[in-house]
Amino acid sequence: MVKKAIYPGTFDPVTYGHLDIIKRAANIFDEVIVVIAHSEDKNPLFTPAERMRMVKEAIGDIDNVEVDDWKGLIVDYLNRVDARIIIRGLRMISDFEYEFQMALTNRKLNPQVETIYMMPHESYCYLSSKLIKEAASLGADISKFVPEKIAQVLKEKLKRHK
Amino acid sequence: MVKKAIYPGTFDPVTYGHLDIIKRAANIFDEVIVVIAHSEDKNPLFTPAERMRMVKEAIGDIDNVEVDDWKGLIVDYLNRVDARIIIRGLRMISDFEYEFQMALTNRKLNPQVETIYMMPHESYCYLSSKLIKEAASLGADISKFVPEKIAQVLKEKLKRHK
Amino acid sequence: MVKKAIYPGTFDPVTYGHLDIIKRAANIFDEVIVVIAHSEDKNPLFTPAERMRMVKEAIGDIDNVEVDDWKGLIVDYLNRVDARIIIRGLRMISDFEYEFQMALTNRKLNPQVETIYMMPHESYCYLSSKLIKEAASLGADISKFVPEKIAQVLKEKLKRHK
Amino acid sequence: MVKKAIYPGTFDPVTYGHLDIIKRAANIFDEVIVVIAHSEDKNPLFTPAERMRMVKEAIGDIDNVEVDDWKGLIVDYLNRVDARIIIRGLRMISDFEYEFQMALTNRKLNPQVETIYMMPHESYCYLSSKLIKEAASLGADISKFVPEKIAQVLKEKLKRHK
Amino acid sequence: MVKKAIYPGTFDPVTYGHLDIIKRAANIFDEVIVVIAHSEDKNPLFTPAERMRMVKEAIGDIDNVEVDDWKGLIVDYLNRVDARIIIRGLRMISDFEYEFQMALTNRKLNPQVETIYMMPHESYCYLSSKLIKEAASLGADISKFVPEKIAQVLKEKLKRHK
Amino acid sequence: MVKKAIYPGTFDPVTYGHLDIIKRAANIFDEVIVVIAHSEDKNPLFTPAERMRMVKEAIGDIDNVEVDDWKGLIVDYLNRVDARIIIRGLRMISDFEYEFQMALTNRKLNPQVETIYMMPHESYCYLSSKLIKEAASLGADISKFVPEKIAQVLKEKLKRHK
Repeated sequence: MVKKAIYPGTFDPVTYGHLDIIKRAANIFDEVIVVIAHSEDKNPLFTPAERMRMVKEAIGDIDNVEVDDWKGLIVDYLNRVDARIIIRGLRMISDFEYEFQMALTNRKLNPQVETIYMMPHESYCYLSSKLIKEAASLGADISKFVPEKIAQVLKEKLKRHK
Repeated sequence: MVKKAIYPGTFDPVTYGHLDIIKRAANIFDEVIVVIAHSEDKNPLFTPAERMRMVKEAIGDIDNVEVDDWKGLIVDYLNRVDARIIIRGLRMISDFEYEFQMALTNRKLNPQVETIYMMPHESYCYLSSKLIKEAASLGADISKFVPEKIAQVLKEKLKRHK
Repeated sequence: MVKKAIYPGTFDPVTYGHLDIIKRAANIFDEVIVVIAHSEDKNPLFTPAERMRMVKEAIGDIDNVEVDDWKGLIVDYLNRVDARIIIRGLRMISDFEYEFQMALTNRKLNPQVETIYMMPHESYCYLSSKLIKEAASLGADISKFVPEKIAQVLKEKLKRHK
Repeated sequence: MVKKAIYPGTFDPVTYGHLDIIKRAANIFDEVIVVIAHSEDKNPLFTPAERMRMVKEAIGDIDNVEVDDWKGLIVDYLNRVDARIIIRGLRMISDFEYEFQMALTNRKLNPQVETIYMMPHESYCYLSSKLIKEAASLGADISKFVPEKIAQVLKEKLKRHK
Repeated sequence: MVKKAIYPGTFDPVTYGHLDIIKRAANIFDEVIVVIAHSEDKNPLFTPAERMRMVKEAIGDIDNVEVDDWKGLIVDYLNRVDARIIIRGLRMISDFEYEFQMALTNRKLNPQVETIYMMPHESYCYLSSKLIKEAASLGADISKFVPEKIAQVLKEKLKRHK
Repeated sequence: MVKKAIYPGTFDPVTYGHLDIIKRAANIFDEVIVVIAHSEDKNPLFTPAERMRMVKEAIGDIDNVEVDDWKGLIVDYLNRVDARIIIRGLRMISDFEYEFQMALTNRKLNPQVETIYMMPHESYCYLSSKLIKEAASLGADISKFVPEKIAQVLKEKLKRHK
């Protein structure tokens, strides 16, 4: 049986931390789908289409990874692609709290759904899309946090945003 | 002497977790007042009047529980009803942090005020009004998290809200 | 109906933090019983009888507080004195973790049992019987952490202990 | 390719929480090996052989689960069975801290090793082998925390232990 | 060599907790610069100029403390004043999380930058500018949390804000 | 005025994490004294003299760092060397809890004493002397966690210890 897992998130934008988790997940599961959640309530800087393009470019050539976007419930997406495993990165205690609530809420919505957590390399444990955007908007060189191409896109986006 | 305690919160909307705490508090204190804080800064989905109606209906027939609403400082409400005990539910570490700040701030405003914490049944420890609203807005069946009647009201509210 | 609550702990020795919680509890409940748990697995410095004597002396003249000791399950003690409320002080996150496990375990052993948490005055939030014993054994003046009489008893005990 | 994962722990004794994780893991991986770590430094109540027998009996008839014991490094066990995935249950914040250290230490010892975390059902999130042994030693009925057979074995062990 | 450190923050408004840290820092470093970060994304109540004036008045006559404001990256400010030490107060666990991310992000932007943490007096560990503003807007007497002059300014500001 | 700081700990044995903090501290303070606390209650593997030798060898040629050992209260050591600043590394939440208690207890014993916290490089945030000893005792190659020389000493010590 093919084990399929999804890795949902906002990815606004994707960081080296996310990419690290994607690679680790692709080593464990037969098929990994990165799911760009629209997350309108978080008021993202990039559109879902832009975020999808950035993730696709950043992951490049990993065979068993696909990218998709989704506006609805994650448990509904899982049904749609006939999967039941959610992957999440765990960096910090405060992640843990929110993740705990999310995992148990999703399990109530569908008892078949299982959330598993992976840790990124310790070099990426401090990365936060929010902090990276803040730093970039103040002129920081963020090429240590995201791939070069994404650093450029972010810079241009922020210029137009002002 | 009659021991009176208040259970303040936003209750936007009330969940099975809140209701569990209300019942536990009613077993300990002679009189419990559920106080709907207006919490305008949290931009609630329901009006104070709507939230009050929902709590009243959900608690139904518990003798020693009343429901009220309040726009001001909690310590002022306590003075008004001649009480000095605040009840709070404690589910998560992050609750604890905020509660710690709140309890000590209230104690400075009035040294007579005592905050006590209770734990909901472990089946409700993951419930969050915020997550429930998010799930409902994406079409989830939330009848495992709130009473049936409230699930309906929430569904209608979200329909009109779009 | 008289509301009776117990405040169990090892009290090896009782600190100003414990005494603060005892006074706060005595203001809320009709009757408070401080229960010295034998806690042999913690290898306490003082015998249960010594700890009891120290607590009694330290609380002095509070009308509605009694002191007792107990070797068995806390839920069994509650049955014996026909009470069902456990009071615990909450100072730190790590307290919270252990307390969460204890409270839910006790609730499974007896669903009638309710644990409530209170916060000591912020001046005592850092007090730990363990650290106080360590400091005293290295010659520190611990009169800011425990009543004078207990500081003396601890000093003598540690002298004989060497 | 067959995905094999190990679930290491002390299991002194196995609880309903551990059993829940074992079943969830068995639904995700082709093969799960429960590895009884000798953990002599933790001074376990049961011998590795006893703990193994208890786990075997408790899991009963799950096809793709095996039980083994191991005295050495977990990364060496993984090499021996040609696996590289470690499963761990995550219940509490304090778990998270220790797990974080363990996972990164193991990764340094062998970069191929991946640790993934799963959450038990919320009904088991408060279970702790340590607390269960304490409660049993004080005469508690622990049949809500471990399978009936294990409750009996634990009771007898503690009788002889005194 | 003169050791210069900066203490950046939003200070909206400055509290007794901030002032406590400023005094402690001034005892350790030859020169301390309090840096008012504009923090437009936090939507502060007071303008940078107002916040600067309040800090200046509150610190009064400490010889080796200066106050400045800054709109950009903190690491750029450090370069500008030829300093490399950042001071931060640490009151709570959740502070720690955010501070951890900030410190490591700043270190990537400039490996010379060092962040050090200090603890305020335990009497101020619960103080939060956000809670103080909330309490003041509901009519609380906040003179225990901020200097008298700032309490007045805050009161007037909130009156005009309505 | 020369700013002198001490960095106390058990250092059983010193790790790359400790060494990282020592170097960072030496960049901030004029003089840093690494103080080997005897910590008999922690039952250390190495004698104070052995731990001192290891630290000395590991730090090598840093001009403004000295190594000393101490059996008593840290606040007494500070008096003896006429210093008042304690440096501590902060890696994890659980560190924070214990450190908070320690810092406030020391401040009560001597209000002049100031504890400041520094973060090691993220590559060392997971290092724990306890885990390293455990891993080494099970045969792990620990040369990524401690200097080569210390890895050898530890290996030999553990051989004789069995």
